[in-house]
Amino acid sequence: MRENALELVEKFWQLMKSNDFRSVGAVLADDYVLEWPQSNERIRGKDNFAAMNEEYPAHGRWQFTVNKMVGNDDEAVSDVSVTDGVQTARAISFFTIADGKIVKMIEFWPDNYEAPANRKHLVEPIA
Amino acid sequence: MRENALELVEKFWQLMKSNDFRSVGAVLADDYVLEWPQSNERIRGKDNFAAMNEEYPAHGRWQFTVNKMVGNDDEAVSDVSVTDGVQTARAISFFTIADGKIVKMIEFWPDNYEAPANRKHLVEPIA
Repeated sequence: MRENALELVEKFWQLMKSNDFRSVGAVLADDYVLEWPQSNERIRGKDNFAAMNEEYPAHGRWQFTVNKMVGNDDEAVSDVSVTDGVQTARAISFFTIADGKIVKMIEFWPDNYEAPANRKHLVEPIA
Repeated sequence: MRENALELVEKFWQLMKSNDFRSVGAVLADDYVLEWPQSNERIRGKDNFAAMNEEYPAHGRWQFTVNKMVGNDDEAVSDVSVTDGVQTARAISFFTIADGKIVKMIEFWPDNYEAPANRKHLVEPIA
């Protein structure tokens, strides 16, 4: 059965939750590429992907919470909150799928910032 | 003809390019809501949306370049570069569609950052 992009992306985040980053290779294509446009960095291949996650300075196990997923047969985007109990971050990831594997991810890491004073009259707090 | 989410989001960015932010109301629902999770801000309604864009400090006309769109019938995500010739930014926007109008946007503004030294051995520059 050919899986659609959303099912594959769901599996990707399930495998990430295991913190066994070698296991994530099961859903990545051999020519897998991950791009971080904000820092102009590209990671090639399952091994570098796993090493990068293993080596990233952490205070404990990484937890991943999927806030939202949008997609179709070939492409999907996820909004995921990431924490190790001390550090928190949010990853917005664009996935491209081919032959039932993830071939490309373009990922963004938006940081929180202070709401500007000059538009206070137009907004309300979300929560 | 009922438009799908991608067609509607394309029209949204076309109208934004006009810099006539009142005109964008044509594709927004009456109960339109825009959320910026990074700053915990919510904007309600076409009028506040237009005012916010009109009042945002700018050095000239705003230009919008759509880098990528992913979507299905009811939801879409766009990756858009924004500039007024001096300021540059990147907006990642999640759109929800109902009855042929945009009812909700959740938008992220990821800033550029320096590539960390501790993963240099695992990455290459994108460009």
